[in-house]
Amino acid sequence: MVPLLMTPGPTEVPERIRTALAHPIVHHRTPEFTEILDDCGSRLKKVFKTDNTVYTMSGSGTTAMCAALENTVSKGDKVLSIVFGKFSERFRDIALSIGADLETLQFDWGQAPDIEKIEEALDDDVKAVTMVHNETSTGVRADVEAVGKLVKDTNALFICDTISSMAGDNVETDNWNIDLCIAGSQKCFSMPPGIGFLSVSDKAWPVIESKKQNYLTDLNKYRSKYPQTPFTSPISLIFGLQEALSIIEEEGLDKRVQRHRENAEFTRTAVKELGLELYPASEDICSATLTSIRSDRAEEILSALKEKGILVAGAQAPENGKMFRIGHMGSIGRPEIERTLEALKEVLEV
Amino acid sequence: MVPLLMTPGPTEVPERIRTALAHPIVHHRTPEFTEILDDCGSRLKKVFKTDNTVYTMSGSGTTAMCAALENTVSKGDKVLSIVFGKFSERFRDIALSIGADLETLQFDWGQAPDIEKIEEALDDDVKAVTMVHNETSTGVRADVEAVGKLVKDTNALFICDTISSMAGDNVETDNWNIDLCIAGSQKCFSMPPGIGFLSVSDKAWPVIESKKQNYLTDLNKYRSKYPQTPFTSPISLIFGLQEALSIIEEEGLDKRVQRHRENAEFTRTAVKELGLELYPASEDICSATLTSIRSDRAEEILSALKEKGILVAGAQAPENGKMFRIGHMGSIGRPEIERTLEALKEVLEV
Repeated sequence: MVPLLMTPGPTEVPERIRTALAHPIVHHRTPEFTEILDDCGSRLKKVFKTDNTVYTMSGSGTTAMCAALENTVSKGDKVLSIVFGKFSERFRDIALSIGADLETLQFDWGQAPDIEKIEEALDDDVKAVTMVHNETSTGVRADVEAVGKLVKDTNALFICDTISSMAGDNVETDNWNIDLCIAGSQKCFSMPPGIGFLSVSDKAWPVIESKKQNYLTDLNKYRSKYPQTPFTSPISLIFGLQEALSIIEEEGLDKRVQRHRENAEFTRTAVKELGLELYPASEDICSATLTSIRSDRAEEILSALKEKGILVAGAQAPENGKMFRIGHMGSIGRPEIERTLEALKEVLEV
Repeated sequence: MVPLLMTPGPTEVPERIRTALAHPIVHHRTPEFTEILDDCGSRLKKVFKTDNTVYTMSGSGTTAMCAALENTVSKGDKVLSIVFGKFSERFRDIALSIGADLETLQFDWGQAPDIEKIEEALDDDVKAVTMVHNETSTGVRADVEAVGKLVKDTNALFICDTISSMAGDNVETDNWNIDLCIAGSQKCFSMPPGIGFLSVSDKAWPVIESKKQNYLTDLNKYRSKYPQTPFTSPISLIFGLQEALSIIEEEGLDKRVQRHRENAEFTRTAVKELGLELYPASEDICSATLTSIRSDRAEEILSALKEKGILVAGAQAPENGKMFRIGHMGSIGRPEIERTLEALKEVLEV
């Protein structure tokens, strides 16, 4: 039996998309496939709410995260890294690996970044600010819009990971002044993993053009080939992506965001009724795409739910065993959430 | 109508594999999926003919090529780059982007590398030798075994791209002393693109361990997580890979190599009977997985075959318009080759 995936990515992939994956292979360098890539590109812009080009990269979301930093940050450049969970730490670690002059703004797990502290730390020397929108490790949503407003009038580029919010929660790449906006296929797109997305602003290009680039992630190559890709596209996944975008458009992006928010609120209410405590410090910073729950019985709950055919996620270090996370993203709807909550109730013997 | 793919990768993907791609998604961090990754890993070792671990990377073949060089070559390191076509040039360009002290051994397109010249160029300062086994751009197969013998007793690492030969032609990673052996999913594995493979020898690890690594391609991370992967696996493609490996095992690797060689010889004979000229300088250096043909009518032939529902590949720069290439790799068998040759005959009005 394949368990119901209630993890915060990868998530259930609807049959329509899975059928698209099985499409006979076509050659990736034909005009026909270029048209498919172009089609995906223009539809992705609508999901990203951007006029910038959205590039698709063969790889994981981390591929796009690395591309964003490697293309814009050189050794010695000052980077302000806002850290409030595991995936923000990844940004920090990538910046470190590049040899950036790193300033880390660390916030406690379960807390949202404090905008005032970011404002204080942001000086003229900062070349890039990294921030995660929806921290999958803690279930906290950060105020990207507020930080974007601060970064906008500085020389710094605003690099934002929206991997677990894009196509589920509201993300406004241009209105929020995100210069490099990163997403991935396996979260709210309800796609399998294997594609990273990355949009690039006009403010970012001069930096990218003037810098020595790594061979693999060089965005200049992506720009000159667009809508084609410098290296072989993951053809089957691109067929799946087209179908995923159709599903998103049929539902309507606004309605989709509304559904995610309602499902999140429904989940939070039910979880609290079961006597459980939400992990985020307050309700207003809770993610719309996953619910993280503080519990010393996390390991036991995970196993018991798995026996009932439902997979939720545990915590990531250092919160191992003290938290679990329920994903409600992409195609996951009220029936799957209710089934999960019912099983959770049984496990807790409420 | 989806055309018959007779290109040298991507190639037709059998229905069994396409069905596997549509498998419901499972979570990539479960013990069950770790077992699947482990299973793929041990079966890949047999295909690679190696005792070394074979890593799977989310991305294209180029991801694995970059990983091989970035992990072993530092700025200023002397790299001997054997170039006899487009994909060997890629190795050279990656080495350049790293800032290597590059020595390029350039051979004409259509020629195989001259082993004596390689022997002359190989001195104690060389840290890495890059070589393509099967040059997809020219249809030439190089003598990797001979070069491996030369590199073996030096301090240099032998980095070999077998992207378009692995699982089709004979590749003996260990016997040929290949330290970093690279393959990709979309060639003789008959899989869609999206996975790069990379095996790493005991000789290579001390170099990799002692060097500062890029965040994305760091093989130390791959080693410490194996059979898990540091970043999200392309789950659907891994299901496809399992099926692809089953198909390879059912046929038997030796028989599969034999079939590729017989099909290549059959194609060459038929092409010559049509009055066409093979692109490689001599028959003994012709690839077993594709046939490249010199013709000033290449563009016209490509278009006419496409109208007949058959896609073959043109040349890559600088040979544009002067050559075309027929792939006969993976699941492509005699019926598809005969259909292609029949259509080619009609186009040539023989």
